[in-house]
Amino acid sequence: MIAVLKSTATEQQIENIIEWIRSVGLDVHISRGHYQTVLGLIGDTRKIDEDLLSGLDIVETVTRISEPFKQASRKFHPEDSVIEVADTSVGGDVFAFMAGPCSVESEEQIISIARDVKALGATMLRGGAFKPRTSPYDFQGLKAEGLELLLLAKKETGLPIVSEIMNANHLPMFEDVDVIQVGARNMQNFELLKELGRTKKTILLKRGLANTIKELLMSAEYIMAGGNENIILCERGIRTFETYTRNTLDISAVSVIRELSHLPVIVDPSHATGVAKYVKSMALAAAAAGAHGVMIEVHNDPARALCDGPQALTPAQFGDVAKGVHAVLDAIRE
Amino acid sequence: MIAVLKSTATEQQIENIIEWIRSVGLDVHISRGHYQTVLGLIGDTRKIDEDLLSGLDIVETVTRISEPFKQASRKFHPEDSVIEVADTSVGGDVFAFMAGPCSVESEEQIISIARDVKALGATMLRGGAFKPRTSPYDFQGLKAEGLELLLLAKKETGLPIVSEIMNANHLPMFEDVDVIQVGARNMQNFELLKELGRTKKTILLKRGLANTIKELLMSAEYIMAGGNENIILCERGIRTFETYTRNTLDISAVSVIRELSHLPVIVDPSHATGVAKYVKSMALAAAAAGAHGVMIEVHNDPARALCDGPQALTPAQFGDVAKGVHAVLDAIRE
Amino acid sequence: MIAVLKSTATEQQIENIIEWIRSVGLDVHISRGHYQTVLGLIGDTRKIDEDLLSGLDIVETVTRISEPFKQASRKFHPEDSVIEVADTSVGGDVFAFMAGPCSVESEEQIISIARDVKALGATMLRGGAFKPRTSPYDFQGLKAEGLELLLLAKKETGLPIVSEIMNANHLPMFEDVDVIQVGARNMQNFELLKELGRTKKTILLKRGLANTIKELLMSAEYIMAGGNENIILCERGIRTFETYTRNTLDISAVSVIRELSHLPVIVDPSHATGVAKYVKSMALAAAAAGAHGVMIEVHNDPARALCDGPQALTPAQFGDVAKGVHAVLDAIRE
Amino acid sequence: MIAVLKSTATEQQIENIIEWIRSVGLDVHISRGHYQTVLGLIGDTRKIDEDLLSGLDIVETVTRISEPFKQASRKFHPEDSVIEVADTSVGGDVFAFMAGPCSVESEEQIISIARDVKALGATMLRGGAFKPRTSPYDFQGLKAEGLELLLLAKKETGLPIVSEIMNANHLPMFEDVDVIQVGARNMQNFELLKELGRTKKTILLKRGLANTIKELLMSAEYIMAGGNENIILCERGIRTFETYTRNTLDISAVSVIRELSHLPVIVDPSHATGVAKYVKSMALAAAAAGAHGVMIEVHNDPARALCDGPQALTPAQFGDVAKGVHAVLDAIRE
Repeated sequence: MIAVLKSTATEQQIENIIEWIRSVGLDVHISRGHYQTVLGLIGDTRKIDEDLLSGLDIVETVTRISEPFKQASRKFHPEDSVIEVADTSVGGDVFAFMAGPCSVESEEQIISIARDVKALGATMLRGGAFKPRTSPYDFQGLKAEGLELLLLAKKETGLPIVSEIMNANHLPMFEDVDVIQVGARNMQNFELLKELGRTKKTILLKRGLANTIKELLMSAEYIMAGGNENIILCERGIRTFETYTRNTLDISAVSVIRELSHLPVIVDPSHATGVAKYVKSMALAAAAAGAHGVMIEVHNDPARALCDGPQALTPAQFGDVAKGVHAVLDAIRE
Repeated sequence: MIAVLKSTATEQQIENIIEWIRSVGLDVHISRGHYQTVLGLIGDTRKIDEDLLSGLDIVETVTRISEPFKQASRKFHPEDSVIEVADTSVGGDVFAFMAGPCSVESEEQIISIARDVKALGATMLRGGAFKPRTSPYDFQGLKAEGLELLLLAKKETGLPIVSEIMNANHLPMFEDVDVIQVGARNMQNFELLKELGRTKKTILLKRGLANTIKELLMSAEYIMAGGNENIILCERGIRTFETYTRNTLDISAVSVIRELSHLPVIVDPSHATGVAKYVKSMALAAAAAGAHGVMIEVHNDPARALCDGPQALTPAQFGDVAKGVHAVLDAIRE
Repeated sequence: MIAVLKSTATEQQIENIIEWIRSVGLDVHISRGHYQTVLGLIGDTRKIDEDLLSGLDIVETVTRISEPFKQASRKFHPEDSVIEVADTSVGGDVFAFMAGPCSVESEEQIISIARDVKALGATMLRGGAFKPRTSPYDFQGLKAEGLELLLLAKKETGLPIVSEIMNANHLPMFEDVDVIQVGARNMQNFELLKELGRTKKTILLKRGLANTIKELLMSAEYIMAGGNENIILCERGIRTFETYTRNTLDISAVSVIRELSHLPVIVDPSHATGVAKYVKSMALAAAAAGAHGVMIEVHNDPARALCDGPQALTPAQFGDVAKGVHAVLDAIRE
Repeated sequence: MIAVLKSTATEQQIENIIEWIRSVGLDVHISRGHYQTVLGLIGDTRKIDEDLLSGLDIVETVTRISEPFKQASRKFHPEDSVIEVADTSVGGDVFAFMAGPCSVESEEQIISIARDVKALGATMLRGGAFKPRTSPYDFQGLKAEGLELLLLAKKETGLPIVSEIMNANHLPMFEDVDVIQVGARNMQNFELLKELGRTKKTILLKRGLANTIKELLMSAEYIMAGGNENIILCERGIRTFETYTRNTLDISAVSVIRELSHLPVIVDPSHATGVAKYVKSMALAAAAAGAHGVMIEVHNDPARALCDGPQALTPAQFGDVAKGVHAVLDAIRE
């Protein structure tokens, strides 16, 4: 941690702050410039509250050198983490295809889609039972019944299932759910993250609409700080001023996360673009960029889907995407 | 609601969609252009799922004419709402001064600040007991003990208190809290909003970092849909690329909200700028723009505050802000 | 064009506006709802000033159905445009590799890089002679001398050259430059665009830092309206709140542009990320997403480059990227 | 300037870099941490290319301590600059009211508006002769004729005039224009800025749609570096995801600029919001925040304005705004 002092700081003030930093157990290195003095704080700088330090009258800026995340950092875990999910996995060389509808609507619908996407290459079935909707008047999901239908589809097809949680009190209902998704709007619902950190469930953590990559990794750190290391990260588009797409897929987040963290990172091109016809090219781009998987919305009747219809693919279109992704993966691994 | 059909739509397809819209109880008005046909849907268009409609092959775009929020809308409640809080109120001609520290730290601290800000014009005491922090390693607040200290300060000074909730399970602890704050990161924690909608507590709902005004009003609608109409909205800065300020205060949100909604709207210049020296000018701007109040961070020792220190004012600085705000209010009400 | 009238509009006002619209030669279709009347304007709606219409007291909103760009639109030119550049081309099935330094620095430097990148697969040589720099005190390029050195390198290697123009008065100096680049900061320098529209030079038009895809296509339309159809579009990252990358590569812009326009679109992963180690994965993603080429910064001594050094690749790294891109292209074209 | 070295840097590499920094005439202070070494560069660090330095293999980050702008900085010019414009001025305690139409349309229009706004408190007349429009098919202004009409209105009323330039070649036409405006889209048209820096004309420099305050000040520095110190800055809204307003007025930019620079800063609430009914509250907020003036669009027939109609005020509405602003100014100066 580096503290740049203001040019107006007196000798006495500088001595005082140095003494104070040393008093909390840190070493200080001092660099005096013509105009300013710079202090380098050495040791476990988490002992220092950065806000307190930068709030001091004589301090101009404070820069933290080490990343604020620790367990999620590749520095502390150089190898890729591979997260086991039932008899498949995510991370390392395994590419995950999570496919399924935005919302579970009926037994017939979810089992039909599950069979179709499995035959076409899906490795997991996704489906929403609890739906976060901007309006209280929109369809909120089948809830407990939706989870039961997903479990039926899992029984039928063997596909592990992924479904979103919105309330830690619902955890008992998710006992047999293989991957618990935390949606973009809950990425900084720290109380929920803490509760999930106390479980051993695999968590799919989606990036918030306006959150930085650092904040995403800090939210993963919340879960890991509780003892749960089974985390898959997901880039799903950020909010910008562009309107032709619902959000803007931040494809470089894949490269950045792979560098900074050992956790696997997948891409959701369906929510990122909000437009079915752009899903394939974005899935291919995700594979080429090094993502560990994609999450794709698939519906047997996209035009009639109860939510997010316009972005859903048909099973046949999903099959085409999966084929294309495999070709790209083969190409980049040669 | 207006649906613009694609130029490729056949007569048969157009007849089919019209029949379908009528089958859900809506009227349809048809406007045929040289290239495109436009359908106007009349009646309670909430019967129509906009996503489903815009997902149909022959539909190019769908535009909703009426706002999606209803109880929060000024169209349904033309007069300003005035929210009673203990023996004071927020909204209409009453300007609220909520002041206090980011975090409650000790009995001495909170009572000292409460006395100071009351003497200088505060109408409510704010203080955080549960703190949402980006990092799991940062100070998370005194929690239940913090709430008790706030209640002590209330007893001492008579000031109603405002404090943030992060988990609906904590509601019993907030029984004597006058105003329950929902922070920016929980603005779309719909499960929390629903629970608060089932209470009669006054809710201070802060705008999310990248949420639109429409989404803020939809989140208010979540609370109101449950039967709780005691809502105060708060603009606290949005995330942009500017870095000299922590966030960017969207001052025009005050004007927009006052036009669209009857709910009172206040401004938090402390979190919006993150810089103490900009708080006064932004508080004055908020008053001039028509805000119903300001929420200002005040600490008896800003440089030593356990969180967000650099943006806190001293009590004396708060008094100066309050004086300035009153002068502006007098000026614009003449 | 659709105009939604306010519910307060009187019959007389509605008749007046209809009469006025018809007076400029348009047809009007009228749809009366319970609350509102909607007018569909049919014919050449460019006769109507949208701002004027939406500014009328009785008009609530105005929506334009057809895209505002015409010559750049795929509707008017269904086939991909292929832009000839010397004896190579950009667009259709031809993938362009533009490579070279941010700034031309010396004869030795530019010729050395040109030879290297040609041997490794580059189809064009890029190099800056006039440099737009945020600070007036930063290196501004070798200017005319830089263009001469580029022409020398072209003579040596046969590679067509790409260089940025900042001032229409400099056009005579660009006579032998094969592709004239308009940088992000000049994307809406309409005077420059108009001048370039009067030439027949091939223009590489880069998207502005905060410009929408629609605005990029409108800027292309400025050039085309003058009679010059030789345009290559370039996505180079937009400004967001993310800080790990200099900008955020909007990879879905490639898919959107390919759908809306017939013009070729390339990607500049060097400026989009600002970080050399992310360039390869982003170039691969661009190829997978359907881009018609990439523009990559290459320097023989990146650490000593006079501008933008940290994002430049060595020639060997460029060769590795080119190889990877070809593998992806083969994979997606199978 | 501070350079943090990577933990992998060898002793030899550290010695080499120190030697190199000293070779360009700077002093180096060295601070060795447990993991990293930090170098403080002392002296005129403009001799160092920051990109070059941060591009070196062993350098992790580079932080510049001093602001990159110099002549625009308050550190170099502690007193407020007051810019003389004809017989009025902008800056210090003088509050400027620039009012007039988006576009000059006719002699009758501009003279009528000029008379009206002068009577109601305007201190300058603004009017567009050259109009930057997103579409080449939209009205582009009356050009030279528009400037002549403005000069007529100046002659009639004595009001100094403000008008936008888009092309340095047009400078001779602006000889009698009192204030030359550089629009948001040209804020980083560095060639134009340099030409304006060679004149002594007063320049009104508007902030770009997605430019930071630092970039705005750097663009002012471009003009000042050429010898022209007559600059007025203008905040006119930045691009965000919010859609109820055309742009988002960054009101805190006023406070930030007043702290960092001695140059006067005004606010344009008309373009910032794009909505006439929000102009008054935003003008009042600007005054309360400490702006040195406002620029307000006024039209005698807003519904029929040739551009930007919906945001224009009538003269009477402008008078009401001016009265309100004066009341706020009196209040904050007491």
